[in-house]
Amino acid sequence: MTQVIQAEPLEGLCRDIFIAAGAPVDIAAIVAESLVHSNLFGHDSHGVLRVKQYVTMIRDGMIQPDQRPRIRKRFGATAMVTGGYGFGQVGARYAAELATEIGAEQGIGAVSLGQSTHVGRLGEYTAIIAAKGLIGIGFTSGTMYSGWVTPYGGRERTFGTNPMSFAVPGGDGGTLLLDFATSGIAHGKILLARAKGAPLPIGMMLDKDGRPTTDAGILDDGAVLLAMGAHKGSGLSLIMEIIPTLLAGHRPISSPEFHFGNPTLLIALSPEAFDEGTDFPRHVDALKRRVKAVKPAEGFAEVLLPGEPEARSYAERVKSGIPLPEAVWADLYELADEFGVCVLTPDALSSGRRRRAIQ
Amino acid sequence: MTQVIQAEPLEGLCRDIFIAAGAPVDIAAIVAESLVHSNLFGHDSHGVLRVKQYVTMIRDGMIQPDQRPRIRKRFGATAMVTGGYGFGQVGARYAAELATEIGAEQGIGAVSLGQSTHVGRLGEYTAIIAAKGLIGIGFTSGTMYSGWVTPYGGRERTFGTNPMSFAVPGGDGGTLLLDFATSGIAHGKILLARAKGAPLPIGMMLDKDGRPTTDAGILDDGAVLLAMGAHKGSGLSLIMEIIPTLLAGHRPISSPEFHFGNPTLLIALSPEAFDEGTDFPRHVDALKRRVKAVKPAEGFAEVLLPGEPEARSYAERVKSGIPLPEAVWADLYELADEFGVCVLTPDALSSGRRRRAIQ
Repeated sequence: MTQVIQAEPLEGLCRDIFIAAGAPVDIAAIVAESLVHSNLFGHDSHGVLRVKQYVTMIRDGMIQPDQRPRIRKRFGATAMVTGGYGFGQVGARYAAELATEIGAEQGIGAVSLGQSTHVGRLGEYTAIIAAKGLIGIGFTSGTMYSGWVTPYGGRERTFGTNPMSFAVPGGDGGTLLLDFATSGIAHGKILLARAKGAPLPIGMMLDKDGRPTTDAGILDDGAVLLAMGAHKGSGLSLIMEIIPTLLAGHRPISSPEFHFGNPTLLIALSPEAFDEGTDFPRHVDALKRRVKAVKPAEGFAEVLLPGEPEARSYAERVKSGIPLPEAVWADLYELADEFGVCVLTPDALSSGRRRRAIQ
Repeated sequence: MTQVIQAEPLEGLCRDIFIAAGAPVDIAAIVAESLVHSNLFGHDSHGVLRVKQYVTMIRDGMIQPDQRPRIRKRFGATAMVTGGYGFGQVGARYAAELATEIGAEQGIGAVSLGQSTHVGRLGEYTAIIAAKGLIGIGFTSGTMYSGWVTPYGGRERTFGTNPMSFAVPGGDGGTLLLDFATSGIAHGKILLARAKGAPLPIGMMLDKDGRPTTDAGILDDGAVLLAMGAHKGSGLSLIMEIIPTLLAGHRPISSPEFHFGNPTLLIALSPEAFDEGTDFPRHVDALKRRVKAVKPAEGFAEVLLPGEPEARSYAERVKSGIPLPEAVWADLYELADEFGVCVLTPDALSSGRRRRAIQ
């Protein structure tokens, strides 16, 4: 069973839950918006299903809901920001804005974010940079608690799923947004395949003896994920264990000194700093048009640009609402009930109306 | 038939050919060293087989052998260098050194290189940055004349093979060097498979109708290369058509305004600018040791780090010499003969002795 909920009341509900859990209003609003936007973009694994996890982390003292990011060091065109284990979304947004500011002044700016809890969707922060006309580059070591990805040729969990993102400002065509895990497949998609009993695509996972498998069911029996693109993606995954991690003052996930978090590096690069900068968005748009005009390969209806599936999901879900699995909705309802915040019946949420909480 | 030639006399021979073809001594030495080092690292496709191509390009006016790079624009922590269509190796080395200098001063530096002929092996330049203790990041739109790679889901040549490179300074363990084309397979390897009549790995190429193929023989019959890692690598390839290309004042290979070249962006990022910087090399070395200790998967004898195959080739070839196909040797011999430069018999070259040219 799926509940279809409109974005606006869903965002309000999540915000109110975070406020009740101890977050200041502005911080609660940022986190709620970030999660609901992930749902709108079709990335439900980074959406409101995280609300319960975050509340649990607040209760366990792992997220400090009222902590605000601050600059720990500023040098040249770089900065080191610490999130103080506040909400990762708040720290990453701050780091993106600071990188943009430095990039606009210096042509390029790099900001690392340490002591960060889950930042959510990395592309959200590179897109913040691109919205100001700069190129956004983001690196994250992407796992909170454990590695899943084996180095190419190996069979031990060593790396996180370590996403990378590039956001390029376009003209009328908007931002071109690339955002991907350096693992071949997202951890969440394996959980989904396991739940459905569906086979995985080939080349995504090895069993505990290092043999290729498509059986998602053995995930917890010592299976390891493979990186995207064989040795090349494995190399990228390794680099992500180093650059954002160490520059944010963290340690790789394989290190005995590892401490949970989502260390992130955001780079903002200004096309204007280079003398052809003024034409940049026009050339990006022209390239996008040429790529869209490429004839499809066998089995494909069209060529999709990075970010295009997300943009379509957004357009659809803004209009028709966000489909939530019954379990996710039940978690939200239960939290709202528990905190005594304004909750809405599914019917009211679907139609956008609100009423006072039950208790 | 293969000639085995020692690196030092081979480098001398190439240098002398470039001098005879119009390059100043120092420029000829840089290019010869770059090519021979590619052979030493096992990347023969970027090695001395290029000498004949470069000489032809000099004769056709496409390489200006005496041109030196110069700064076209300097802004904040960025610079735009023009190579003036001199040797790409000279321009890229200069850009790497300038990026390193800016990075050391500002924490990060970004330098684009335009009007560049073939830069050779991108990792050479990120490694120059890492040798000074900074992290080197390199992006290139990697094709001189035509695109080979289709966007994911398509079947038309649209992108170059567009390499990326990351070089991370280590401690005793030396630089960790990742350097790869964003295509699934290098163009040169397809030529090799075709010459041998060997099948390609699955997932590397589509035929002219957009159907998967392993037949390297149809390369010139409208076949297209696929990017590494499906839609993710395709996205990276697209990003490389934008960032280094436009920031160097060039146009994407698919553009009607395209002009041949190897536009490159080099970024140098200083770990010292971030406050855990002093421990950086030690943590990199520790991570490398952990990765090396990962148990191998089925079909693998060990886990290799990025750059490890190259380092092994280097150690072996510095000692035993560089194996050159007869045709490559014949080209070099012919050029030397034609220019009247000091040429060596294969026997002399193998043993490292030199004698005066034939004519």
